[in-house]
Amino acid sequence: MNTLETYSKLIEKEISTFSFPSSPLNLYDPLRYFMTLGGKRMRPMLTLMSAKLFNKSVEESMSAALAVELFHNFSLIHDDIMDDAPLRRAKETVHEKWNTNIAILSGDVLFVKAYEEICKNPPHIIPALLTLFNKTAIEVCEGQQMDMDFETRNDVSSEEYIEMIRLKTSVLLGCALEMGAIIGETSLENRKALYDFGVHLGIAFQIQDDLLDLYGNPEKVGKQVGGDVLANKKTLLSILAKTHASEDQLNTLNSLQNEANPTEKLTQTISIFESLSIQDHCKKEMSKHYTHAMNALGTLSANITYQELEELAEYLFHRDY
Amino acid sequence: MNTLETYSKLIEKEISTFSFPSSPLNLYDPLRYFMTLGGKRMRPMLTLMSAKLFNKSVEESMSAALAVELFHNFSLIHDDIMDDAPLRRAKETVHEKWNTNIAILSGDVLFVKAYEEICKNPPHIIPALLTLFNKTAIEVCEGQQMDMDFETRNDVSSEEYIEMIRLKTSVLLGCALEMGAIIGETSLENRKALYDFGVHLGIAFQIQDDLLDLYGNPEKVGKQVGGDVLANKKTLLSILAKTHASEDQLNTLNSLQNEANPTEKLTQTISIFESLSIQDHCKKEMSKHYTHAMNALGTLSANITYQELEELAEYLFHRDY
Repeated sequence: MNTLETYSKLIEKEISTFSFPSSPLNLYDPLRYFMTLGGKRMRPMLTLMSAKLFNKSVEESMSAALAVELFHNFSLIHDDIMDDAPLRRAKETVHEKWNTNIAILSGDVLFVKAYEEICKNPPHIIPALLTLFNKTAIEVCEGQQMDMDFETRNDVSSEEYIEMIRLKTSVLLGCALEMGAIIGETSLENRKALYDFGVHLGIAFQIQDDLLDLYGNPEKVGKQVGGDVLANKKTLLSILAKTHASEDQLNTLNSLQNEANPTEKLTQTISIFESLSIQDHCKKEMSKHYTHAMNALGTLSANITYQELEELAEYLFHRDY
Repeated sequence: MNTLETYSKLIEKEISTFSFPSSPLNLYDPLRYFMTLGGKRMRPMLTLMSAKLFNKSVEESMSAALAVELFHNFSLIHDDIMDDAPLRRAKETVHEKWNTNIAILSGDVLFVKAYEEICKNPPHIIPALLTLFNKTAIEVCEGQQMDMDFETRNDVSSEEYIEMIRLKTSVLLGCALEMGAIIGETSLENRKALYDFGVHLGIAFQIQDDLLDLYGNPEKVGKQVGGDVLANKKTLLSILAKTHASEDQLNTLNSLQNEANPTEKLTQTISIFESLSIQDHCKKEMSKHYTHAMNALGTLSANITYQELEELAEYLFHRDY
């Protein structure tokens, strides 16, 4: 997909020329480091693609795109502290390379930098951009809190789990797309269509991520098969398994949490998942959101050519599993 | 000062009716707790007083005032983590009462809440409010980073120290006042006059705080005399003492850092400070900024009655020392 690569390069170039002050060094060095760790730059790409639907140029939509990417990186820096994560994109996290205090504070600054980018837009659209951005930022925090709360709970329902991933990861995709629509000064209906497309694509993508842990092609997925299962991580698979399990199966699943032999743990878990058709249940839920996303695109005004977004969605769901 | 009390009550009432969502509990309970811990509410008061100069009502300036207070509380929650402070206003800090992760995340949400309040203003002034607010927020973070960096440095100059307190505490007072002026839709000259008044009043106030540690009336100051000296805290006094000290005095000051007997430590430190006229040097620096603040008020357009702000400044500097 050439278009994606083109967008990605444009964003990477913009980020590489992004200038942070030289002092205080301990505040800005972590940001120079973290912002150039790479990543797919999916979110800013969505803003540029969305604005293009309404004939807005990359120049006109780049500030909003950067705002979304800066916010995303702020939330990663703070999340990494909370999750005690040593690595991000195979490199040391900020709190590991510097310390927690510096990670908190440089995260805070990055958050303000996102707002500064929003301010670079034409004044008459700033209030609309800001309202959407604030709502999204709060939802992302709520999602992160739910995720942390879930760690100590044993009764998380699939509805609660989907709501958590909607808030923690998907609303930001919706926001990225709707910001492009705000820049395009289009109707509220078109804004909503793009927002819904982003949110449901995001949920479907997150469910796919859960599925890939057990059913992905390890060479293409690039991480250990069953890592989530071995770490007792809550995923849509494990939650649905608990919901559908018989009392016996539930007991086995619970005792498997403490199983030390990884092969035994994986084999037995997969066997229960299979007998409960967990993979199918998950795929059904994923397809539901994917279809919802595509239908949302279909509600855009008739004169809008959204092929690029359709192709992006198809590309994101061409991973093997 | 009846006016101050009136403003303070209005703000306290507004904060008490401020509504946070009920869920996630672990995100919003800390905010309900922290926002009602009290405090002087000096910053929002400045916004209301400044807007009043331009005939804007409390209703018209309350959102901006709240934005400043919410931001201030966000920065306190994060600073308390970084400073490992157990208490704030004689109550447990958020990271002590809950935990560090919850303090990071609820702080983040409070930051967004500040931006939400800014959004409640008339759309045409939002860009100006936002530009000022962003600049200030970044400076406050820079000041906090400088303060942390100073802890491990032995060569901090008085100029660097004043720059640190300007950023960490004073620019927010300037911002609070200038926001009132933006709401009042007044000239850039009047905005600058009020900003400068706030910044220099803030610096003078912080120097007064340093002075009160050793030379305040303990009954009125409400904390242990010499607490800063005993904790080896960097203050304008200790920095100026190091600058003016002879080699012998410098050696004594350095070895006093490890003196275990508090009476001995205080008596000897005060004796060196006295021989170097440190109190006078500090008072001179404080007066310089106080005068600068008052002169800034004098540059306001002729038709503006700023008596209330003058009285506030005099009230703030009527503490015994």
